[in-house]
Amino acid sequence: MFNIAVAQSGGPTAAINASLAGVFTEALRHPEIDAVFGSINGIEGVLNDDFADLRKILISDNDVQLLKNTPSTVLGSCRYKLSEEDCRKAAETLRNHNIGALFYIGGNDSMDAVMKLHNYFVSNNIDIKVAGIPKTIDNDVPVTDHTPGFGSAAKYVAATLQEIIRDSRVYSIPSITIVEIMGREAGWLAASSCVLRANGEPAPHLIYLPEADFSEEKFLSDLEEARKKYMAVIAAVSEGIPLRRQDSAADPFGHTQLSGVGKMLENISREKFGCKVRSIELNVMQRCGAHIASLTDINEAADIGGAAVNAALAGESGVMMVFKRISSCPYRTEILSTPVENAANKEKLFPKEWITPQGNDVTNDALEYFLPLIQGEPEIQYRNGIPVHFVLRGG
Amino acid sequence: MFNIAVAQSGGPTAAINASLAGVFTEALRHPEIDAVFGSINGIEGVLNDDFADLRKILISDNDVQLLKNTPSTVLGSCRYKLSEEDCRKAAETLRNHNIGALFYIGGNDSMDAVMKLHNYFVSNNIDIKVAGIPKTIDNDVPVTDHTPGFGSAAKYVAATLQEIIRDSRVYSIPSITIVEIMGREAGWLAASSCVLRANGEPAPHLIYLPEADFSEEKFLSDLEEARKKYMAVIAAVSEGIPLRRQDSAADPFGHTQLSGVGKMLENISREKFGCKVRSIELNVMQRCGAHIASLTDINEAADIGGAAVNAALAGESGVMMVFKRISSCPYRTEILSTPVENAANKEKLFPKEWITPQGNDVTNDALEYFLPLIQGEPEIQYRNGIPVHFVLRGG
Repeated sequence: MFNIAVAQSGGPTAAINASLAGVFTEALRHPEIDAVFGSINGIEGVLNDDFADLRKILISDNDVQLLKNTPSTVLGSCRYKLSEEDCRKAAETLRNHNIGALFYIGGNDSMDAVMKLHNYFVSNNIDIKVAGIPKTIDNDVPVTDHTPGFGSAAKYVAATLQEIIRDSRVYSIPSITIVEIMGREAGWLAASSCVLRANGEPAPHLIYLPEADFSEEKFLSDLEEARKKYMAVIAAVSEGIPLRRQDSAADPFGHTQLSGVGKMLENISREKFGCKVRSIELNVMQRCGAHIASLTDINEAADIGGAAVNAALAGESGVMMVFKRISSCPYRTEILSTPVENAANKEKLFPKEWITPQGNDVTNDALEYFLPLIQGEPEIQYRNGIPVHFVLRGG
Repeated sequence: MFNIAVAQSGGPTAAINASLAGVFTEALRHPEIDAVFGSINGIEGVLNDDFADLRKILISDNDVQLLKNTPSTVLGSCRYKLSEEDCRKAAETLRNHNIGALFYIGGNDSMDAVMKLHNYFVSNNIDIKVAGIPKTIDNDVPVTDHTPGFGSAAKYVAATLQEIIRDSRVYSIPSITIVEIMGREAGWLAASSCVLRANGEPAPHLIYLPEADFSEEKFLSDLEEARKKYMAVIAAVSEGIPLRRQDSAADPFGHTQLSGVGKMLENISREKFGCKVRSIELNVMQRCGAHIASLTDINEAADIGGAAVNAALAGESGVMMVFKRISSCPYRTEILSTPVENAANKEKLFPKEWITPQGNDVTNDALEYFLPLIQGEPEIQYRNGIPVHFVLRGG
């Protein structure tokens, strides 16, 4: 009998807790696993000996179900770079608690912790398995076909963008709407807005990604062309497009202010065209919109968590679990593992060959890739008209 | 046999099309009503003789169902102030089409059109009934207990705010999140964020409305107090709070830029506290978030549309339909009518007695008022993982 520990790291998604639920549920199936400890605030919980005994918290099946549909990280998170001394301390704490395996749910930066811990354990003959479970709405983790959390963010973006499109067509006047979507280095999420075309919706009419060249002049001439065809032009823009910018401007109080790219493009578009122009930032809602999560994503997030448990029990360590896509239509995947150094601190950008030659749209291959990831809707429980979240600690 | 016409006016909500569906469905029940004409872009359709024959468009029950769950205005909208000459022209067009009753779905400004048309018809002995059907996410229409569209916006705000709360608690560091909510003159929607307390959620910890006094000093000292109790402080702020402000500041391109109150409060809070501060604008999503609409709201919107048809058939004209609340718990209402001049061009502000003495929160009476309005979830149809909207004209 031994215990296991699980931690959540990096920025929120709608599916991180589903992976936690997957680890927990799979652990219950294995009699050799005793306690499942949740490390509070990522690896910091391990360093500070701050654990929650999940069997005492997740009592009923419904608790687990609610957990799966609760966004962000029920155990808290961290952004922390491990030192050698941290690894030594972590090993000590984990051994004190008879923890035989540590599961780390996180993005490419978080996989650095998995790699360091694994290397330290191997070098020091410590038999603790470490496995990474990917997550990020940015979808920028290498090797895996896609990351848990991305499908739900993409579904939120699609549903919300479609509502913005309805809103933009209310008056019979020309307008431009610029929707700023998360993705500093990789444009996957903005690119995913193309899924609306599967239902015959031409908008967004323009899509701009960090992976393509960008110029104000080209952007304005693209808008000019689109305005000939559409009364209400919609552009989806990654926050990370390579826009020349200075970051500081004084607001009315004399405070420095960061302008998002959406606001900046709004301003240059209004000046050029003089029509109604607005920019909309989907902000943190796109990464925590659990009420419109993708069931495919939530289920896959749980499955890949469970697969990590089985990998560790089979003796694997220093790995990250990955999805391999067998086919898009019908959608079929399998879950494998890869040495974590293939993913740690590395990024997978949106493929250049899926960007149209004009650099302002994505191809049909991209649509085919994205579509399976947003399918299905979890059954959300409501209390007093509000989705029920599973909360470990309030405040 | 005579025809009827229906138009949609003012800004989008998630329930305007439900009222249209209500008018349509009720009209089908009355054999004396022949065609149901949808006026394109509000009263402009009447003036330009631009109608859609709804019986030819809404073919199946499912079309009507999809219409009910489609946000914004399927017929388009307008913001147009009627002249005497317009009234003459409208009468002519309506008579040419043998239209015996016109139903106008809109807010307090739109009721001005109802009033003017009614007065013109009466003065000129023209027997065309005109009835107003209220709608607005601002909930600021007099006489009626609440307005269709408001409950869905409130539900969107509650669900989204709860997700933002989850997001704000991810790291174990002090933070302040300022959520800017629509409502230029009336703070109903920001106030409605108190519904989260029905489920034991203390956030938002502070609520600021246009109806209360506001000072930066008081705001900052409120935050200071809240920070003693909560690691992640959440403030809900109406866009219309009386903040002293100049509207123009130059952005990095030298363009003039309007800062929302959220961004301005973010800046002064960051300067004061030096902690992580962010502001989030719920933007147009809060008025068109049909995927998380309130079923109570959608059904009431349809019912009040149907009631308008019955009122006109009973000979009423120059009226606006209203909800009268019988009780909150259990929730019971009835639908009545009021002379439209009681509502046209007038506003109903959030009651001062529902604001706490400190001016930074609302009372339990407010919670009781809001809670019934966000209950229930419509069954949303999905195609390719995206909610299906009913669209009359694309582009």
